[in-house]
Amino acid sequence: MIYFDNAATALPKAKSVADAMKNALEICGNPGRSGHVYSMKSAEIIYECRKKLALMFNTRPECVIFTSGATESLNIAIKGTNRPGGVTVVSSMEHNSVLRPLNSLRRLGETVLRQFLVDVKSDARTLDNFSTVSRSATSVVITHASNVCGRILPVRQMRSLVDNEVVFILDASQTAGHIPLDIIDLGVDIMCIPAHKGLCGPMGVGALIINPYSDIIIDSLIEGGTGTNSKSLDMPEYYPERLEAGTLNVCGIAGFSAALDEFDFCQSEKDIYSFLVNEMDNRVDITLHGAHAEGSAENYVPVILFNKKRLDCETVASILSEKGFALRAGFHCAPHAHRTLGTFETGGVRLSLGKVNTLDEAKLFLKALDEIK
Amino acid sequence: MIYFDNAATALPKAKSVADAMKNALEICGNPGRSGHVYSMKSAEIIYECRKKLALMFNTRPECVIFTSGATESLNIAIKGTNRPGGVTVVSSMEHNSVLRPLNSLRRLGETVLRQFLVDVKSDARTLDNFSTVSRSATSVVITHASNVCGRILPVRQMRSLVDNEVVFILDASQTAGHIPLDIIDLGVDIMCIPAHKGLCGPMGVGALIINPYSDIIIDSLIEGGTGTNSKSLDMPEYYPERLEAGTLNVCGIAGFSAALDEFDFCQSEKDIYSFLVNEMDNRVDITLHGAHAEGSAENYVPVILFNKKRLDCETVASILSEKGFALRAGFHCAPHAHRTLGTFETGGVRLSLGKVNTLDEAKLFLKALDEIK
Repeated sequence: MIYFDNAATALPKAKSVADAMKNALEICGNPGRSGHVYSMKSAEIIYECRKKLALMFNTRPECVIFTSGATESLNIAIKGTNRPGGVTVVSSMEHNSVLRPLNSLRRLGETVLRQFLVDVKSDARTLDNFSTVSRSATSVVITHASNVCGRILPVRQMRSLVDNEVVFILDASQTAGHIPLDIIDLGVDIMCIPAHKGLCGPMGVGALIINPYSDIIIDSLIEGGTGTNSKSLDMPEYYPERLEAGTLNVCGIAGFSAALDEFDFCQSEKDIYSFLVNEMDNRVDITLHGAHAEGSAENYVPVILFNKKRLDCETVASILSEKGFALRAGFHCAPHAHRTLGTFETGGVRLSLGKVNTLDEAKLFLKALDEIK
Repeated sequence: MIYFDNAATALPKAKSVADAMKNALEICGNPGRSGHVYSMKSAEIIYECRKKLALMFNTRPECVIFTSGATESLNIAIKGTNRPGGVTVVSSMEHNSVLRPLNSLRRLGETVLRQFLVDVKSDARTLDNFSTVSRSATSVVITHASNVCGRILPVRQMRSLVDNEVVFILDASQTAGHIPLDIIDLGVDIMCIPAHKGLCGPMGVGALIINPYSDIIIDSLIEGGTGTNSKSLDMPEYYPERLEAGTLNVCGIAGFSAALDEFDFCQSEKDIYSFLVNEMDNRVDITLHGAHAEGSAENYVPVILFNKKRLDCETVASILSEKGFALRAGFHCAPHAHRTLGTFETGGVRLSLGKVNTLDEAKLFLKALDEIK
């Protein structure tokens, strides 16, 4: 089976990830709860991972909050910074992990939602659209790159178009591990990342990264024991404890930490992406949605959405699965992105590359795709 | 090192738990997101674990909601069932995972809190106290057994003392895996459990168990992608998807599932508990809080809180740690429980037993304890 579903979760994970998880399972007590060696060992593993993430995203260790994944990170970021009378701006490419929590706030009358159209052919037009909609915004929540078609949004420029007081939350689910991310340089207040996608860690872990220069106050979504300030009925005021209630996922964090040690950016996924986009764009029976043969490599993470003429997307993915290729068809939990791309009725087949994919695999895939009639 | 901190997290975990996690890391895609074999394998692992938990706690598989731990389960249960004008009753033994989310609702004016006193010497007096306080309650949130002193509360009788419409949420963090739990027999609406304590699974996983006969509606706390109903901006209405947003912790659930295969109730922890309580109750320099030499075995899970005369609890735990015994001193994230037991100023040393502890370890512990002057 050739795996092209890395935007859902990266495969394979490094062997050291499993080893680190096994080790943690054997030696780790509950971190921050007791003074004995098992508990101290856990605390050390967690702090090491926190430091690595802080270094990677250019923040301080205490500004790294561990969560169960990008979805929890986004829910904390969105709900924990929402203030009465807010106006939230989102792009037309958002995933349900942004749209659904915002919609629940909207239904409660706690925010007003505005959407700007992403133009996959022109950042300038996207920025124009953003500029118009964001005028009275109190917060912006946007995906850094579409999980449906891979298009990267011009986040730094967007940040510069709104006031400093506007809360800026970035869903980096599809960019973390694919392009370098510096939270200070991007200027966003909060960045939400999963461990299990581009960073090749395990599922069940993620982080909420806070800009060290941001004076934003994030309220907790989940409260519970922190092993500190036990006598208080409130969460501690300081990060990370303020937002980390209950026992952390120590095994998952140990695995994440090992994955970060192995991590490096990958040129081959970019090369294979360009090769595939060029080849597919030249085929008359294939429609690419978003990417195109020229100039896509810098503006896209390696995710390709396509359809094969006269065949519905589920059928194509199913035939490809039988032929030994793992892709994902449908709507990818992002209805507005499909509306933006003109595939709201049909859905599409998504191919997403990872670090171990090869050019030979891409060629085999094209051959298989051509065989489908 | 002899490990007596099983109420914080159980150690050791079975070897099969690590093996299952490693296997999941190797073969698992994102469950419920795609149709290929990696994704199907994940979905299968998750459904197997759901079925095992449903069987263990006497509910239907779809009434088992996976979470990141008992703390998230409790936050979902408490916030997802809270209705305006509510009056919530808690015991005087609650953990901060119950108190802190309730306190955040209280501060927002969304509930009124009432507390009843637990009498560790008499269930009858506890029930009297509960009865008085619960008269106008709309919900009850109680721990099944104190994480501080191990006392089991008479939940079935409490349930029968309030109307059916009263939402009844049980924090089974300290009982799951130590005593059999049948949600229909107990009559509670929701039961919250961690994987990593009595059930000997990994940290980072838990469940919210719904009574199949309860008509309670639980609103989501976290919204996001579910792989289903992608075009809707609302979470699906049906369980478990209604409450499970984002990618599940597949490795953790695989480990939990393996732990459940190994699971059996353990007589030895009860025997060692009785032995230790008897021995410690007979020592003039030891004060037991809660448990006592006679009649404690049926009313307690194997958790013992004590102090050694003239020494503060942290010092005792620290000396014991140097002597090779892992215990936890302090307030155990449960301030009111310490108030109830008269240890709010001093804290206490907690010894908590697990399935692999032996009588010889208990004897070595008593010897070490006696040596501390």
